[in-house]
Amino acid sequence: VTAVTLINGRAERQIDCADRGFQYGDGVFTTMAVRDGRPVFLSLHLERLRNDCHRLRIPFPGESVLSAEAQQLCRMETSGVLKIQITRGPGDRGYRPMEQADPTRVLSIRPAPVSPTSRSEKGVSARLCRHRLGRNPALAGIKHMNRLEQILARSEWHSELVHEGLMMDGEGALIEGTMSNVFVVLGDRLVTPELAQCGVAGVMRSVVLAIAREDGIPADVRAMGCDELEQAQEVFLTNSLIRIWPVVSLEGRTWPVGPMARYLSRRIEARILSEFESHP
Amino acid sequence: VTAVTLINGRAERQIDCADRGFQYGDGVFTTMAVRDGRPVFLSLHLERLRNDCHRLRIPFPGESVLSAEAQQLCRMETSGVLKIQITRGPGDRGYRPMEQADPTRVLSIRPAPVSPTSRSEKGVSARLCRHRLGRNPALAGIKHMNRLEQILARSEWHSELVHEGLMMDGEGALIEGTMSNVFVVLGDRLVTPELAQCGVAGVMRSVVLAIAREDGIPADVRAMGCDELEQAQEVFLTNSLIRIWPVVSLEGRTWPVGPMARYLSRRIEARILSEFESHP
Repeated sequence: VTAVTLINGRAERQIDCADRGFQYGDGVFTTMAVRDGRPVFLSLHLERLRNDCHRLRIPFPGESVLSAEAQQLCRMETSGVLKIQITRGPGDRGYRPMEQADPTRVLSIRPAPVSPTSRSEKGVSARLCRHRLGRNPALAGIKHMNRLEQILARSEWHSELVHEGLMMDGEGALIEGTMSNVFVVLGDRLVTPELAQCGVAGVMRSVVLAIAREDGIPADVRAMGCDELEQAQEVFLTNSLIRIWPVVSLEGRTWPVGPMARYLSRRIEARILSEFESHP
Repeated sequence: VTAVTLINGRAERQIDCADRGFQYGDGVFTTMAVRDGRPVFLSLHLERLRNDCHRLRIPFPGESVLSAEAQQLCRMETSGVLKIQITRGPGDRGYRPMEQADPTRVLSIRPAPVSPTSRSEKGVSARLCRHRLGRNPALAGIKHMNRLEQILARSEWHSELVHEGLMMDGEGALIEGTMSNVFVVLGDRLVTPELAQCGVAGVMRSVVLAIAREDGIPADVRAMGCDELEQAQEVFLTNSLIRIWPVVSLEGRTWPVGPMARYLSRRIEARILSEFESHP
């Protein structure tokens, strides 16, 4: 499976090895679903890229150029996965950022993976990872290109029967999955970990929180302990490609697929259709 | 200033953007001085690459191929800086490492920077950085390609009169400089922070500790607080390019260049000459 790639608007696959993205992971990225030739929640993904660039003081290339290039790729692959990376660009030796950075943008699209929709419907098995996330408020929330912690966590298991691993921080707080955010239902409330010390603030996480707000579902974003997984009526995972995966098995505890996960899945689908209709 | 680069043995400067080094910072590196056409302490640098690859389970390309390529570059630039990066190589989407990785090696050499030897002789000014290092024992000590923490710390100051910033971890322990290790002299003892939770175990740090062992200088590798900087008779910084920079000014405290820094500088120089003579 080969991706089609645009680097700074040109159809290339090769990057200058002096790029700070390759030297230091000095960049940010986002990944979104493509459906009917359109990137899903594109404006939210561009907003997160803008915010993340701002926090790392990487000049943002602008919504219009990224949107135009994204749409160019979506004409070539109408159903798939689109990834946008923005790095600080080529640099000299040393960690110090250049005063005038010339950022690199890399957009790549690949066909949709063989889609196990059964995971959304029947739920998934998760595990608790041994690897912990380091706490770093200056990087917390950003989807940056320093991903060794996730790689170490994802290396902990090989079974195809386990679909995701949940991660704690160094203090034992529950934070997220290796490639997803986590929500639990406790009583009548939806709860997801705050990401003030570490973790990635996913676009689908923000969509779920927006739906909860609109629909009057009480939702808390706060520090969470792993013991709250035990007490939860439902646990589910979110990201832009899987949308919602109900967790039906975690370290010996099991759940049926719950009503909140089903409800939110329908609401996300409705939101996508409504976005597509309002901007045809 | 353009570097000369070998990627997997070929004279190229471009890397596949699907390389996990570019996607996730999934790789390690080392940087060494080149003098009289020879990489200084090459065998120690190759040993650290082997160890760091092992810890991240990246297949190590082997000392012989790296050594041959390093020497090939040193014939083109007889005095300069040689950097070796090893990544997990091209990968599919997702954090999970491939079962059979095909690692990428990137060696690049550039001319020596205009060398302010006065910094070794007259000492440098340092500051204490606000940005803290996240604690992560699984990554501690490794010179990996996830370097956003150092980039954020190095962004804190712009004055050319400040030469390095010292970093603490989230708990306030003293760890290292943004691009160097730190040593202090306390009484008759040499002390440097242990790197069990974060930090990079530099090659020059290990050389200094080896010299201390050989010469009977009592040396401690242990947890350190920033208050110990106040009490120190000497503070100095190490890395493979600067060797030793005595700190003469730090957040209002000043020191003269001390005897331990001078002694170790001479001993390092002697060690390099002896290595060159024994392997002509």
